Amino acid sequence: MPFHSHTLPNGLQLIGETSPSARSVAVGFFVRTGARDETPAESGLSHFLEHMMFKGTARRSAADVNLDFDRIGASYNAYTSEENTVYYAALLPEYLPKGVDILADILRPSLRQADFDGEKKVILEEIDMYEDQPGSVAWDRARKLFYQTHPLGNSVLGTKQSVTALTRDQMADYFRRRYAANNIVVSAAGNYDWNEFVKLITEACSAWNTDTVGRDNRTEWGGNGGKHLLVREKVQQEYVMFMGGGPPANSKMRYAADTLALAVGDDSGSRLYWSLVDPGHADSADCSYVENDGTGAVYVSLTCEPENTEANNARVFEVLTDVQKGGITDAELQQAKSKILSRVVRGSERPMGRMQAIAAAWSYTGEYRDVDTELTNFDAVSLADVRAYLDAYPIDACTVIAFGPLKELNGLAGQVV
Amino acid sequence: MPFHSHTLPNGLQLIGETSPSARSVAVGFFVRTGARDETPAESGLSHFLEHMMFKGTARRSAADVNLDFDRIGASYNAYTSEENTVYYAALLPEYLPKGVDILADILRPSLRQADFDGEKKVILEEIDMYEDQPGSVAWDRARKLFYQTHPLGNSVLGTKQSVTALTRDQMADYFRRRYAANNIVVSAAGNYDWNEFVKLITEACSAWNTDTVGRDNRTEWGGNGGKHLLVREKVQQEYVMFMGGGPPANSKMRYAADTLALAVGDDSGSRLYWSLVDPGHADSADCSYVENDGTGAVYVSLTCEPENTEANNARVFEVLTDVQKGGITDAELQQAKSKILSRVVRGSERPMGRMQAIAAAWSYTGEYRDVDTELTNFDAVSLADVRAYLDAYPIDACTVIAFGPLKELNGLAGQVV
Repeated sequence: MPFHSHTLPNGLQLIGETSPSARSVAVGFFVRTGARDETPAESGLSHFLEHMMFKGTARRSAADVNLDFDRIGASYNAYTSEENTVYYAALLPEYLPKGVDILADILRPSLRQADFDGEKKVILEEIDMYEDQPGSVAWDRARKLFYQTHPLGNSVLGTKQSVTALTRDQMADYFRRRYAANNIVVSAAGNYDWNEFVKLITEACSAWNTDTVGRDNRTEWGGNGGKHLLVREKVQQEYVMFMGGGPPANSKMRYAADTLALAVGDDSGSRLYWSLVDPGHADSADCSYVENDGTGAVYVSLTCEPENTEANNARVFEVLTDVQKGGITDAELQQAKSKILSRVVRGSERPMGRMQAIAAAWSYTGEYRDVDTELTNFDAVSLADVRAYLDAYPIDACTVIAFGPLKELNGLAGQVV
Repeated sequence: MPFHSHTLPNGLQLIGETSPSARSVAVGFFVRTGARDETPAESGLSHFLEHMMFKGTARRSAADVNLDFDRIGASYNAYTSEENTVYYAALLPEYLPKGVDILADILRPSLRQADFDGEKKVILEEIDMYEDQPGSVAWDRARKLFYQTHPLGNSVLGTKQSVTALTRDQMADYFRRRYAANNIVVSAAGNYDWNEFVKLITEACSAWNTDTVGRDNRTEWGGNGGKHLLVREKVQQEYVMFMGGGPPANSKMRYAADTLALAVGDDSGSRLYWSLVDPGHADSADCSYVENDGTGAVYVSLTCEPENTEANNARVFEVLTDVQKGGITDAELQQAKSKILSRVVRGSERPMGRMQAIAAAWSYTGEYRDVDTELTNFDAVSLADVRAYLDAYPIDACTVIAFGPLKELNGLAGQVV
């Protein structure tokens, strides 16, 4: 699959893989901004702004945006994370011009006061709904306790207080700074013509402003190893998170980190699966490596009946200290690699998967990562690489946060939240 | 993509599409059995049996099944519906022999008494978890009230009573009858060699038994138009289902039914979206066509704050009677077609999508449906076809079931469930 890239004079970057055997094309605008780029007074602003992008432009009402996407049968959506805000669509090839026209248009929103006031209510309802999902609340609280003052602990949704206090002018200012052309990467994959794509984006986006863009505090963070017990009484299960440091997205160690996490805590056959899930001690016990801009993390998450939490925490620590001491076996390494290779290959079969993958790699490293190089890099991970990784990022050095009905755990008194 | 089919002497059918540009292969065993094929005393047995398939065979322990799938990096799973029980895996091409070996092996399970007793507890816990999900419980209750004595109203999970009463001998008897080779279709799609696949399946499955297989009561059913109010007090929202008849899976009218359902109730731009969701009256209001063996159905589902239910029900009926009287516009037809064409094309890009699609068509009609024919059939739907469809299956002739905290609705007193 040939790779292409291009930069407009205003700094907007275009990247793409073309695949003539595909039957569709996926396009995404990756804005390098999210919760970690917000000041405390701006908490929740990136996500609120993402909603406002669908509320109309100089050329389109909110209804027009919906209708225009529907007329071309687009599958479209958007999301906001700690470090990216992404707008994307999957299209039939003949609708690429129209799809680009709509996506580029909504990225220059009107931000009308009446729409801002109406959408604020929707966001506040979304925060209410979210509060009813204990698993999500647990993660949000745990991230904050793990990351402390590091901006990766910022909440994507914000709080009802912070969102209520936001003004349209704050949003317009944030938009101007963070949605500058030189803070955006447009990615495409599938069946389309690269030169036509460059022409379409050039026409639609050349007038976009340039600004001084950047990101504060990209230092590595591994937590401080504390233990926290958060009490929420109406919840049925206990949610426990074990959070430790990991390599940043641009580190060569990312391959060892991902492979090891799978061997330790994939949801079928893994150390945690055999120790906790297969014997029925816990509903789930997973381990995953998360890569971020400037830092990374390894999270173990456990869900179980409250009365089994103490024994299960001990089982998790036994697994983690065993791995830290003795590493994993060659059989475990090969098994984890098989799963990853299969996952990468299957993900590569869809334009949407490739569009997202090349944009993520480009955003973090400024480099193109083709499927075969990615496969080669994972295949090359050795037991010595795993050992070197564990020495650099000890997997048993975690901050532990439990969330649920338990009021006391190993002598630690809970704090009602 | 070339199509192939083959039948073993014992009646097992093999079908497949080969696509050399794919990078993976998907394989599925479709057993033509589900809740609709159970007697009242067998309620929940198909789903329980699906769980037992992963509990070990003459050659493999339950742990071996898990480990063997993991060693080849397979993404594998199973599900049970009212009319099918399906076991499938996505694999890298070089692991096809191993993947077929594991799948075929687990389909001849040991059904050991100790495993049966242990897994029964898991199923009973699953029923408990399910009872905590009001949306799912609402559907289960609504289907029973709509289908009355038609076997499509049977519950996939069964009840705690019916599952508790099941015995291992009942399961062994059901397995022998329903998992006979002549009641199974094996489907494959992606990058593999057809002749090798036939050889692998022939070796693995030729010894499987043949039996008298069939299915009772495949008559069409459109409900009896009643209204029901089911009260569950701790639920926050009201779930309302409007259920009417539709064409069976082997009817030519399936294309008009699917297209019309999208125009009426797709989750972006549709009659129900603009009438209920966009103005904020309801959280969701969708319409979908469901095709089954011998009959079909059109379901509208509405979720809203309880106090808005009465007004929203009136809005839904206004939409449905308008459509029944005046049909849809040409613009609506074209928009619905665009969405379907895009959905079909994108679904065709993944071996897993094609493997499922050809197996569904084959099971229902005994015919192969290639992507281009499917696209042509949808593209050919005219406003006259929509009219003919509405005359045959009036969309406003529904059975209505509301489930939630409301104790009274339009003068109808609720029944606590």
